Amino acid sequence: MQIKDIEQAAQRLSDIVHNTPTMLSRTFSELGGANVYFKYENQQRTGSFKVRGASNKVAKLLETQERAPETSQQSGCFGIEEQPPARRSFSDDLCPETSNEGELRRVVAASAGNHAQGLAYAASRLGLDCTIVMPRSTPIAKIAATEGYGAKVVLSGSNYDAAYNKALEIQETGGAVFIHPFDDLDVIAGQATVAMEILQDLPDAEAIVVPAGGGGLLAGVAYYVKTLRPDIKVIGVQASGAPAIKKSFDAKKLVSTDDVYTIADGIAVKSPGKLTVEMINKYVDEIVTVEDDEISSAILLLLERGKQVVEPAGAVSLAAVLNRKVDLAGKKVVCVLSGGNIDVSFIHKIVEKGLVTRGRQMRFRAIMLDVPGSLEQLSSIIAKNGANVIMVQYDKISADLNLNETIIHVGCEVSGHAHGDKLIAALEQEGYRVTREDA
Amino acid sequence: MQIKDIEQAAQRLSDIVHNTPTMLSRTFSELGGANVYFKYENQQRTGSFKVRGASNKVAKLLETQERAPETSQQSGCFGIEEQPPARRSFSDDLCPETSNEGELRRVVAASAGNHAQGLAYAASRLGLDCTIVMPRSTPIAKIAATEGYGAKVVLSGSNYDAAYNKALEIQETGGAVFIHPFDDLDVIAGQATVAMEILQDLPDAEAIVVPAGGGGLLAGVAYYVKTLRPDIKVIGVQASGAPAIKKSFDAKKLVSTDDVYTIADGIAVKSPGKLTVEMINKYVDEIVTVEDDEISSAILLLLERGKQVVEPAGAVSLAAVLNRKVDLAGKKVVCVLSGGNIDVSFIHKIVEKGLVTRGRQMRFRAIMLDVPGSLEQLSSIIAKNGANVIMVQYDKISADLNLNETIIHVGCEVSGHAHGDKLIAALEQEGYRVTREDA
Repeated sequence: MQIKDIEQAAQRLSDIVHNTPTMLSRTFSELGGANVYFKYENQQRTGSFKVRGASNKVAKLLETQERAPETSQQSGCFGIEEQPPARRSFSDDLCPETSNEGELRRVVAASAGNHAQGLAYAASRLGLDCTIVMPRSTPIAKIAATEGYGAKVVLSGSNYDAAYNKALEIQETGGAVFIHPFDDLDVIAGQATVAMEILQDLPDAEAIVVPAGGGGLLAGVAYYVKTLRPDIKVIGVQASGAPAIKKSFDAKKLVSTDDVYTIADGIAVKSPGKLTVEMINKYVDEIVTVEDDEISSAILLLLERGKQVVEPAGAVSLAAVLNRKVDLAGKKVVCVLSGGNIDVSFIHKIVEKGLVTRGRQMRFRAIMLDVPGSLEQLSSIIAKNGANVIMVQYDKISADLNLNETIIHVGCEVSGHAHGDKLIAALEQEGYRVTREDA
Repeated sequence: MQIKDIEQAAQRLSDIVHNTPTMLSRTFSELGGANVYFKYENQQRTGSFKVRGASNKVAKLLETQERAPETSQQSGCFGIEEQPPARRSFSDDLCPETSNEGELRRVVAASAGNHAQGLAYAASRLGLDCTIVMPRSTPIAKIAATEGYGAKVVLSGSNYDAAYNKALEIQETGGAVFIHPFDDLDVIAGQATVAMEILQDLPDAEAIVVPAGGGGLLAGVAYYVKTLRPDIKVIGVQASGAPAIKKSFDAKKLVSTDDVYTIADGIAVKSPGKLTVEMINKYVDEIVTVEDDEISSAILLLLERGKQVVEPAGAVSLAAVLNRKVDLAGKKVVCVLSGGNIDVSFIHKIVEKGLVTRGRQMRFRAIMLDVPGSLEQLSSIIAKNGANVIMVQYDKISADLNLNETIIHVGCEVSGHAHGDKLIAALEQEGYRVTREDA
């Protein structure tokens, strides 16, 4: 790889992807004890940086084909002398009449995630067909999103490996070109344009913090930054439940993990790339890991304070800074928010957990008399204390209960831990036996 | 008001607030049938445009005071000849030694919302003390946010009107200057800088869609746009449950509403401003209203597809476009996303409702035998159909039940309506009497 490969990638991408902003966040600077900037790749087309690598790969394949049209039997419309390849824009449609053998017509990949959407979008913009193989268990929402970008989705196998094999089979029998999600120099060069934009917007950056799963983004960023600006630190972040790149970095050779377990599905990779690990081990300063709890807390803070939706894999960079996994105090630090494709049911779970953790939702059980008026009496105390009931459940199965008593479980919205404590104290004051159930 | 008032406001604000981006959204263009651009005021300092008007007002008060120092007994440090007022930057600290009577030291406002945070921030940046009066029922989170920007919060009264009177009392007895949230020409001029930035970034805009509550933002935008570019349409959007400006526009005079009911608390205003209504009636092309359901659906789409957190009042502009409340087909339309301060428990509710509406969460009840193994049998069918159980509740109170039967209520996560229907069909196939409970 050379710097010019990345510069050429940036030219290829200029019509296809966004140059996303790099901006200071005062809020997160205070929380992180550094000058925290975000590179907003969650705002990228298709919701993640993956579209960069995929677009560069596909565009370059098309260029190579255009440069050597005489080798195929029919030269295709781009072989016409009057229209030199260099002038063709990537957004032009491919000449639809030609269908000579050997011509690139279709790309294929195995992915249930951001690579699927990125490649589907890239292929559609560049006028190619695209087939994405996904495991049968893939949620319908992900299938629909990929189809929405114009790809054909094939469901095959029960896991990623099976889908991967099916994609290779389609490459061989169906005349499609397989596009790897990360272990490919053209893909890596495409992802490296993230670093190019960061340095253009913030030439005095002191550190760049990058999520890492397969390693394509981290390898590209590290190569570009360290070649041109070795003074800037490049830090990779992995989920502690999927630490293959961290292990490879420590062992100074490619290491795979047997299993991965993390909420950050976008970086839950067992076997990182040969090329990516080689580049990472050469150029990256440090790899750190973050816990799932730290990731979900970062996502919630980004929602609340940053007004941004970021997926778990995209939030590990911020999680690392907030939890001081690396010493960056007072430095100008760019956290790459690499993607925003988080399922709405997952947002729901993260917010729900956050509400309980912060004492905004509470749960208790109380014992009360099993007679008319009991619920009214209890609920009048709750109302007087300004709490909003969201759940009530009765339960009479307990050996400790007298025959004229019942257990009631109550869930409430309150303004915080102190408010919840005040409600419990008020209930006890009125003689109720109360037990918190949310700890 | 003159255009130069807005230009001066922009100069005053340049160090204090963000010039937020105006950007095309391809996703929402498709959904809205127009070229939809967003003006991201949810990314503004303090999370809403309100900081613009507050900052302009406070900065201008300070300038006026500087220009006439000889009228006060002590001239204060800014009256010194060698330091002409024009050179002073707004981010300089005010001279702390002076405390002569009549000098502006403190501002006060009544607000539990974005004006509170905007004014608190503006005052703190400009070196003034700030008191915000809020009703006693204000959630702790809002109090904390305002205190976080350096203001003193006073809780008083049970509603906004009582807090407002308290704030006026503080103005009179405490030597503070009361800052109105919208009915003030300097505040309106500050909000109008939103329009100035839009026209700088997108000079060929054809329509601007603006949320309206008190009317400060709408009045400012309409005045600026219509004075300089009468060809551009300016459309105001209100919540249908708080339509005072719509009514005032139709009646061609100031009309208040007795009551307001909407999830868009930021624009739930009973009495809009005298000044704002006068300007709106003169300059605005059209006022439309949106329903709460349309607002929450727009918020959910912004979260999912736009990766943005927008508060209900800030999402009414998009809701109007998505629901074709005004004919903008094919036009270049800027929706002002006026704020992002939405409580996390509210996000929770919107997402929850969205999950049910889209069939991602379902609920049914079934009748089964009240014997060992019944739950296993039912749950094996649910598991085979790939649904995730999130709630189970037993209920034996029904006259229709045989003695050896029980009702079970089950909540499940599924991938969509079709998946849910498939599960119900499978259960019926196995002989269960099933009733959907989520419609």
